[in-house]
Amino acid sequence: MSFVPSIPLWLKNKFLQSNMKFRNFKMVGYVVYGRGSFNQLNEIIEPHRKEDDPMIFLVDHFFKGKSLINRLPLRGHDKVVFADVTYEPKTSLVDKLAQQLKDEFGKVSGIIGIGGGSTMDLAKAVSLMMNNPGSSSDYQGWDLVKFPGVYKAGIPTLSGTGAEVSRTCVLTGPTKKLGMNSDFTPFDQIVLDPELTTNAPVNQRFYTGMDCYIHCIESLNGTYLNEFSKSYGEKALQLCRKVFVDKREWDDESDDQLMMASYAGGMSIAYSQVGVAHAVSYGLSYLLGTKHGIGNCIVFDKLEEYYPDGVKEFKFMVEKNKIDIPQNITKGLSDEQFDTMINVSMGMKPLWENALGRDWEKTMTREKLRKLYERL
Amino acid sequence: MSFVPSIPLWLKNKFLQSNMKFRNFKMVGYVVYGRGSFNQLNEIIEPHRKEDDPMIFLVDHFFKGKSLINRLPLRGHDKVVFADVTYEPKTSLVDKLAQQLKDEFGKVSGIIGIGGGSTMDLAKAVSLMMNNPGSSSDYQGWDLVKFPGVYKAGIPTLSGTGAEVSRTCVLTGPTKKLGMNSDFTPFDQIVLDPELTTNAPVNQRFYTGMDCYIHCIESLNGTYLNEFSKSYGEKALQLCRKVFVDKREWDDESDDQLMMASYAGGMSIAYSQVGVAHAVSYGLSYLLGTKHGIGNCIVFDKLEEYYPDGVKEFKFMVEKNKIDIPQNITKGLSDEQFDTMINVSMGMKPLWENALGRDWEKTMTREKLRKLYERL
Repeated sequence: MSFVPSIPLWLKNKFLQSNMKFRNFKMVGYVVYGRGSFNQLNEIIEPHRKEDDPMIFLVDHFFKGKSLINRLPLRGHDKVVFADVTYEPKTSLVDKLAQQLKDEFGKVSGIIGIGGGSTMDLAKAVSLMMNNPGSSSDYQGWDLVKFPGVYKAGIPTLSGTGAEVSRTCVLTGPTKKLGMNSDFTPFDQIVLDPELTTNAPVNQRFYTGMDCYIHCIESLNGTYLNEFSKSYGEKALQLCRKVFVDKREWDDESDDQLMMASYAGGMSIAYSQVGVAHAVSYGLSYLLGTKHGIGNCIVFDKLEEYYPDGVKEFKFMVEKNKIDIPQNITKGLSDEQFDTMINVSMGMKPLWENALGRDWEKTMTREKLRKLYERL
Repeated sequence: MSFVPSIPLWLKNKFLQSNMKFRNFKMVGYVVYGRGSFNQLNEIIEPHRKEDDPMIFLVDHFFKGKSLINRLPLRGHDKVVFADVTYEPKTSLVDKLAQQLKDEFGKVSGIIGIGGGSTMDLAKAVSLMMNNPGSSSDYQGWDLVKFPGVYKAGIPTLSGTGAEVSRTCVLTGPTKKLGMNSDFTPFDQIVLDPELTTNAPVNQRFYTGMDCYIHCIESLNGTYLNEFSKSYGEKALQLCRKVFVDKREWDDESDDQLMMASYAGGMSIAYSQVGVAHAVSYGLSYLLGTKHGIGNCIVFDKLEEYYPDGVKEFKFMVEKNKIDIPQNITKGLSDEQFDTMINVSMGMKPLWENALGRDWEKTMTREKLRKLYERL
């Protein structure tokens, strides 16, 4: 017996995935790791150039006017597009960028995302929307994407999000903040060159690094885990500690190790789940637009009740690395606004269940969550 | 400027790879990890069935008559082929199997390799030879394979070789023992189900596990390493220690952890190199046909001069796990035979250089190597 051919592959995949107890994890196509590996970008993308169709370099606006731009291997109609990632990417921005590229070039050879998690997620989403009809908001969810995107490569310039290896791209849409989770979403290529993270601003570097650290603490203390994710999570955590706890000063090795921590942390997501910090920070992000890395830090700083050892170590790292964690960001919010955050947060059931067990609603009441939000 | 279209992709890739300082590492397509994930095999391979073309299950002959065979998701013309891996796979066997499949079916949907490193390597090679002309011996080397193989999946039933994630498949040919190293070689899918390793014979399980352990000791003590390979190597080594040093008795967790050790050890190969044990054991394997895992153990047992801590720990593990390491296997060999082994071993320049530095020939003379072989 074979499947009736009229069932499209994406629907077949969606059906099959949903029947599987263990996630069948789609890996990125190629990985290159090394100081200076960015210099190989020309050779790496060359085989993926299609006639005169340009490569689009989608670059974090942080690099406007910086020397990295002169190192891009531009050819023919290739274009550099700066991504304003002051806020996390919106579906409307994805749709606009994809439409502009279609209007200007018809087709493109590929999208090369260079930046932090937001830029990489944006690059994945634009790649997908070059080949899928409608709006990116139609595909927020699991296995809704119908066609593979154009060739896409991710080049992190900040370490910690794990976006370089994830099968999602988190987007804020008209009705929800949710990624385009699909087997078409992971990059075809990632270039891990720790040199590119050398000049990251110290606070930003810390917040993004803590995205990895906090994820590991949450998943390793959770109820949902197997040896695959545990191995990766432990390695990521150990590397974060080397960098932020043990090291006397930041050096090249710190960049090398934090880049591997991010990669390992991202891989560990395959069979693990995050916990309280993520559940609470989603509320902040929804209401106030707080970015993921810093939001997690603001929340985790107050979670001594749930992760006592982790929070103690976190506070040590904050002090040692002379980092500012914003305080009192919920001061003056209305009851209605607190309710919005609480509603968003309470909706993250799998996260709460992973952190506090099946009876999590007995432990985490709306009143208790309100008190927690008031402390942020 | 574009490449002239008449240059085929494989040649372009070969040219480009050779110009790259950092290897651009091709990953396996999909990974599923979990106890019982083998039960998802039907759903996993379903989207890759092409009309009536059969899936070929290439299974280690160890499983002949065992219950695993009844769990294979056979359909239509699917065929089970048992692989005799008493000796490591030969190019002649690869060619014969591929020809038989072509004669019987014309085309096949895919090759599913189920077994240890030899079986998985055989599956990769047969997959490639379904779509490449000539003999597999024509492709022993680096980036010589011209066309992608048919769909191929690897399912380890022994942990330690790392063959599940490697970009090679080691074959003994008419003139050399060398793999078909190429970007077409890695599996499209691997299924990591630790349950499948439960009933492995104790000695065999140890030898294969030590393939991973010894690799890690050699690469972590070598001169050629970066943070990517170091992270994976350290994790693999730590897991080997948990299993073979710390554990009081073998249990399910041992199988879980050793399977991850193998995977991590395999990934660590990307930017690392092996050393003395491999260089010496290649000589044994060439002359006597000694299999890789046990050969490495026989050699490593005598390498206290080069890896003092590792060999001490190895001897502890041998004793603790009540393992037999064969002794005196070179007794009675002729001078000519010793010379053959020495020639093969001295030819492994990158391994010696990694272990002993650029001036390795001053440290490891033919006389010294002869004495080492005499002790095995």
